[in-house]
Amino acid sequence: MSASITVLAPATVANMVCGFDVLGFALATPADTMHLRLTTEPGVTILNEDDYHLPTEPSRNVAGAALLALLRAAPAGTGIEVRINKAIKPGSGIGSSAASAAGAVVGANALLGNMFSREDLVRFAMFGEEVASGVQHADNIAPAIYGGITLIRATQPTLDIVTLPAPALHVTVVHPQIEIKTSDARQILKKDVLLQDAIRQWGNVGGLVAGLCKGDYDLIGRSLEDVIVEPVRSILIPGFVAVKEQSRLAGALGGGISGSGPSIFMLSRTEATAQAVAAAMRHVYTGLGLDFHTYVTTICPTGVRVVPTEKLLPNAVL
Amino acid sequence: MSASITVLAPATVANMVCGFDVLGFALATPADTMHLRLTTEPGVTILNEDDYHLPTEPSRNVAGAALLALLRAAPAGTGIEVRINKAIKPGSGIGSSAASAAGAVVGANALLGNMFSREDLVRFAMFGEEVASGVQHADNIAPAIYGGITLIRATQPTLDIVTLPAPALHVTVVHPQIEIKTSDARQILKKDVLLQDAIRQWGNVGGLVAGLCKGDYDLIGRSLEDVIVEPVRSILIPGFVAVKEQSRLAGALGGGISGSGPSIFMLSRTEATAQAVAAAMRHVYTGLGLDFHTYVTTICPTGVRVVPTEKLLPNAVL
Repeated sequence: MSASITVLAPATVANMVCGFDVLGFALATPADTMHLRLTTEPGVTILNEDDYHLPTEPSRNVAGAALLALLRAAPAGTGIEVRINKAIKPGSGIGSSAASAAGAVVGANALLGNMFSREDLVRFAMFGEEVASGVQHADNIAPAIYGGITLIRATQPTLDIVTLPAPALHVTVVHPQIEIKTSDARQILKKDVLLQDAIRQWGNVGGLVAGLCKGDYDLIGRSLEDVIVEPVRSILIPGFVAVKEQSRLAGALGGGISGSGPSIFMLSRTEATAQAVAAAMRHVYTGLGLDFHTYVTTICPTGVRVVPTEKLLPNAVL
Repeated sequence: MSASITVLAPATVANMVCGFDVLGFALATPADTMHLRLTTEPGVTILNEDDYHLPTEPSRNVAGAALLALLRAAPAGTGIEVRINKAIKPGSGIGSSAASAAGAVVGANALLGNMFSREDLVRFAMFGEEVASGVQHADNIAPAIYGGITLIRATQPTLDIVTLPAPALHVTVVHPQIEIKTSDARQILKKDVLLQDAIRQWGNVGGLVAGLCKGDYDLIGRSLEDVIVEPVRSILIPGFVAVKEQSRLAGALGGGISGSGPSIFMLSRTEATAQAVAAAMRHVYTGLGLDFHTYVTTICPTGVRVVPTEKLLPNAVL
């Protein structure tokens, strides 16, 4: 048990095309850096080391709310300080809030001798997501903690998270610099869908999971189709149709909206293709005169990575 | 190329719980026996060797309609006679019509030197399903031809059939002797479903496919849940709730309506459990005073099996 620790909390992609609300994955980059230490003063202390001016009051901070949930299950009197240096821009659609929440609870758990299970940590981190979006969803939290590609089979009566095997996949993400609120993106979805569309969607979910398990890239590509959410939400993202078309032409297997946007992700079989896809994305947004960032990365097999830094207080009393 | 052939066409389970319209599997028993031979007279000849009194006019017979579709793509002047001995009772919900259609086209293809692909055969056989139910569905045809567990990822723009790996699974089927028309079972389904139910369903489809691919029996069991179709259709099947409950208590992983019913199937990890499940099912229907049949079998890794019998006309001109 060390009294000070550093964690790298990965960006994540939720709502993996047909797998709306159930499939997501962790990215190798970008990742937030968080330094955590046990404090003699009980409770949570938040320190920001970046320029995002996020709230430092624990109950209003994503990492703070997750840590408060964890502390309710930890030995009385536990105190945790976290210094946060975010590399994942809030509101980008690649799990910025999930990284803060997941990184905080995984780090705190390491400081506390790993007393909690991964399922526990997901539940604590979901309180962080509630601060960010008003909803306790695990779509980004699950891959941020488990790594790789995760399936949330069910959330009730208990959370059931399944890790999926996958062949090597390269990921290209473009983040056009516009703002979409998760709550707005939720509101434009209809409560009802056509049964025939739902059947097509779960056929694709089955195909995508089978393709990942079998390492069948063609099947993965064919299954990356969303007939329910993308047609509605993509209208909020300028350039979406062009990005998708040009990415496929550049060789991408397929992709779609990351989370509730505005980021768009594409999967490719090789890094060279992923780079060509990034070039195609840049061409689209340069043409539209919109600022953007692109990332070329891979699916990260691990979730939050703990990097022990120092053992200042090896005999700290919890 | 032999001029006479015998095929065994397996029963199949479609609408595998959460996988409504997309997931199905082949049973090792029962299976129809069909004898096919090339004839000098062009066209299709149907001979029934069982007591079901099915139509023998090719366009009104399931095997006949499938063969007529095949002949439209075969060399002009081809003639095929098929003698059918059905072991799968029509209307039982375990793919009786699919067995006739699939057996006919697989047998005919063998007689014709395997000139057609499996995808072609599925498309021909779907014309047989149209005779039976008014709809060209591939839910039973796909597993009857491919064997094992099949996923129909999509039917448009092209039929996309995926075979799924699976661990050993034992199957118990109970067929209560009541009649449910596929067309009636279709009509009581609503055209719209709640998005939140659809999400739960595709979470389960993802879990089921992952469980099958990973050989994870617990995950398979947890994923055998249908929140959309079963709540509506099960009311047509007396004893359904009791059969499901008692089967789970007897150790079944789970199961549900086979096809559009009235048969109910349950999956188990061992044959002993599958036998205990059969006993539980018998107890339910004996208590209800309903006639029934039970089958204890396995998932058949192959589809229609061709058994060459004789080569009477080795130089037959097609």
